[in-house]
Amino acid sequence: MELWYTEQHTENVQFSIKVEKQLHTEQTEFQRIDILEAKEFGKFFTLDGLMMITEKDEFIYHDMIVHVPMATNPNIKKVLVIGAGDGGTIRELTRYKTVEKIDMVEIDKRVVDVCREYFPQVSCKLDDERVNIFFEDGLKFVRTKENEYDLIIVDSTDPFGPGEGLFTKEFYGNCYKALNENGILVNQHESPYYDNDALAMKEAHEKVIGFFPIIKVYQAHIPTYPSGHWLFGFASKKYHPIKDLDANAWNELGIETKYYNTDLHVGCFALPNYVKHMLKGLTK
Amino acid sequence: MELWYTEQHTENVQFSIKVEKQLHTEQTEFQRIDILEAKEFGKFFTLDGLMMITEKDEFIYHDMIVHVPMATNPNIKKVLVIGAGDGGTIRELTRYKTVEKIDMVEIDKRVVDVCREYFPQVSCKLDDERVNIFFEDGLKFVRTKENEYDLIIVDSTDPFGPGEGLFTKEFYGNCYKALNENGILVNQHESPYYDNDALAMKEAHEKVIGFFPIIKVYQAHIPTYPSGHWLFGFASKKYHPIKDLDANAWNELGIETKYYNTDLHVGCFALPNYVKHMLKGLTK
Repeated sequence: MELWYTEQHTENVQFSIKVEKQLHTEQTEFQRIDILEAKEFGKFFTLDGLMMITEKDEFIYHDMIVHVPMATNPNIKKVLVIGAGDGGTIRELTRYKTVEKIDMVEIDKRVVDVCREYFPQVSCKLDDERVNIFFEDGLKFVRTKENEYDLIIVDSTDPFGPGEGLFTKEFYGNCYKALNENGILVNQHESPYYDNDALAMKEAHEKVIGFFPIIKVYQAHIPTYPSGHWLFGFASKKYHPIKDLDANAWNELGIETKYYNTDLHVGCFALPNYVKHMLKGLTK
Repeated sequence: MELWYTEQHTENVQFSIKVEKQLHTEQTEFQRIDILEAKEFGKFFTLDGLMMITEKDEFIYHDMIVHVPMATNPNIKKVLVIGAGDGGTIRELTRYKTVEKIDMVEIDKRVVDVCREYFPQVSCKLDDERVNIFFEDGLKFVRTKENEYDLIIVDSTDPFGPGEGLFTKEFYGNCYKALNENGILVNQHESPYYDNDALAMKEAHEKVIGFFPIIKVYQAHIPTYPSGHWLFGFASKKYHPIKDLDANAWNELGIETKYYNTDLHVGCFALPNYVKHMLKGLTK
């Protein structure tokens, strides 16, 4: 027999992967988790049927959500990560000796448990001594923090379901407050290509724009996400992602990466005109 | 009923589009042509079942294959285009008043006829007085030319079927000869993501490397091609695509584009590390 996983990228577009076997499925308090195995992508997992990470290309997303802010400010010491239950963002952060503390807030403990079991090469640094894991709602967690972090990474699902609160004005305002004067906020930012994703991107962006003096968007090629053209939001109190990049300093760290490099750091902020047009008045 | 077009991106990965209707199908002397209409992409056409262009995003491919070389050398006057039967590359070239002559060599006249009928907004400049259309084999055409063109654009299908000869050492050698001392060669260059596409990319690259002193690769987000991470080859006798870019000069031309801009021109040459690794020793 043939077994195919299909994600509806829109009502009229499907992306399908031939699956060798389903390794795990469960309905948690928050969402449905599935772990599948495929010849093309290795193991991959979905939440409520939507692709989260694959063994083949998780490095792209995790490189881009971590190394862009970390190279912008080499003095980042205290980091808050919201979501990120698979551990990939934590793995990349722990490669910096300068990072002293990482608070990770994941609403669904089952995501962490399952990823520890099936994706050891992604979750491998969740037990690093600098990491504190809180199984809570990120929205509530961040309300209690003030002037505490150098960097907040919002490694969330899409802006519906459990991730919904992480795309609100209240949440971004609390992130601003939780960051110190050097603070940077990076979040996954949907895609500009299909109408529904583009709408989610614009709505999220409209909500963050008021709080931070520097607001940028950068992009990466992530073939397993809808359209493969994926965006990240970069909001910052002081550091400019290009003007303040010290490429030599980052390269001297000797961190080997499969996607990120300091030329690409600059290049990824050069958006196509149609994307710039969508964001008109929403970056600064 | 539901009608779905499916392209196998690999043996184990499918990309499917819900189709409203099939507008045209024929088997020509060279290949099968299909024109389909879809809610998400508007009209699109395939050759031997593989996606060529869609109304929704053809601007991305055509912007990137034309404006990158044209902005690199603003004195391009004589252009040879191989393939490009849909007319999109010609449409973008004719926007430059400085271009004096465009020879277009398309092996399959039926592609041009059908695109004139179904894609008037793409084929609209095929009758520009500077354009000469030759229905011939591009491989043979270029053998007869010497020191004649400022730019050759190879807007071909994949390196199998009718496009196969356009990825050979003999072809690239003849292109070198057909170009004058300022000559630039740009070609569609497959994708780095799926193994088969990456192999085609490397093989093509190995064949062009000997002839030109400057060899680069650049990328674009084209969601309707396999993986959405598409590459273009840039081979040049004299002009360097970044060092010789005069961004102000290009911007003063006032050419409005939906994808290309001069920041992106620089950014698109910043490749991810895994792609650089594949091309190691194959760029210069």
